Amino acid sequence: MKSLTKHLTFNLPERMAFLNITSQVVDLVAESGIQEGLCLVNAMHITASVFINDDEPGLHEDYKQWLEKLAPFDPSPKRYRHNRTGEDNGDAHHKRQIMGREVVVAITNGRLDFGPWEQIFYGEFDGRRPKRVLVKLLGE
Amino acid sequence: MKSLTKHLTFNLPERMAFLNITSQVVDLVAESGIQEGLCLVNAMHITASVFINDDEPGLHEDYKQWLEKLAPFDPSPKRYRHNRTGEDNGDAHHKRQIMGREVVVAITNGRLDFGPWEQIFYGEFDGRRPKRVLVKLLGE
Amino acid sequence: MKSLTKHLTFNLPERMAFLNITSQVVDLVAESGIQEGLCLVNAMHITASVFINDDEPGLHEDYKQWLEKLAPFDPSPKRYRHNRTGEDNGDAHHKRQIMGREVVVAITNGRLDFGPWEQIFYGEFDGRRPKRVLVKLLGE
Repeated sequence: MKSLTKHLTFNLPERMAFLNITSQVVDLVAESGIQEGLCLVNAMHITASVFINDDEPGLHEDYKQWLEKLAPFDPSPKRYRHNRTGEDNGDAHHKRQIMGREVVVAITNGRLDFGPWEQIFYGEFDGRRPKRVLVKLLGE
Repeated sequence: MKSLTKHLTFNLPERMAFLNITSQVVDLVAESGIQEGLCLVNAMHITASVFINDDEPGLHEDYKQWLEKLAPFDPSPKRYRHNRTGEDNGDAHHKRQIMGREVVVAITNGRLDFGPWEQIFYGEFDGRRPKRVLVKLLGE
Repeated sequence: MKSLTKHLTFNLPERMAFLNITSQVVDLVAESGIQEGLCLVNAMHITASVFINDDEPGLHEDYKQWLEKLAPFDPSPKRYRHNRTGEDNGDAHHKRQIMGREVVVAITNGRLDFGPWEQIFYGEFDGRRPKRVLVKLLGE
């Protein structure tokens, strides 16, 4: 069995943003030498997501508006009790639950076994500081 | 280590529908000969889901109404910027995020290690064309 | 390849509640002797979740209010067709889809490879009876 572990760091200047990290994961699959296996990619922070969808800027704007409607940013302690702790990111913990923490992708014949439009994104909901993403590859 | 990879194709006549694909996954687990391992099942399209829940038609109707409320179908480019690209499926990219892309199921003693009501569904949100689901089995 | 399978049982007195089960998963990772691998933790019931977020009581109250708004408890068969079956837990099947069924966590150097605040929770949406969570560890 082979495995490879990598912690990537991202520091996005916006509070909410999506970053295509597919090429970095593709490089790690090649580096691992794994032909058949599984690739886990997860946010290591609880106000961020890793998800798979389309690399289309209009869609990303749609996601932002939609998430803002489902869980509006509100630093006051009235809407989110979490913000009574001195934090202002209660909304980010909710947005992350909608978009998910992680993806698991198959590795087949040494490559990510992807459909035509699948791309891996880091989803940031409380940015402006360095945050980490874990890539774990396992297989043979 | 053993592995098995299978790409299933579904072509659902409705825009939105749920299809129980458990028996096809069960057959692949048997075919793999894996006794202890993991089974990944994921949509390969970004307007579709794979999820686990109950095979109860009333619940599926509830899900459809609920998803339609959370992310209504609207082919116009006004609600979804994504539809400015000429697509009409902006809603489907949102519904898929609620229902998820994939499931990972344990294989124990050569079988899917399921609770009493767990069934695997393909969730289609932009149907009427062939779309693929990946099943990847890994273990020993 | 090593593997370990454990079925945990929880019986929460509330209809909706979140329970930190991290220490039980940590113990199983140690018991498995796995140094590099993957850890799957999933609800075996379709009205419950396993998710990773912050162990902060205010946030958990926020989640409960938010989920209640997104999918209100309503035992009548009017809001949820699922409740026409005699069940009263249609809402729980929806809440579980928001919070997710499972998490997959990397095992690195014999430990859960976690970010600073990541904790694993059992999410109950239709409690007051024993329900199970599966922990499956795979690696070397």
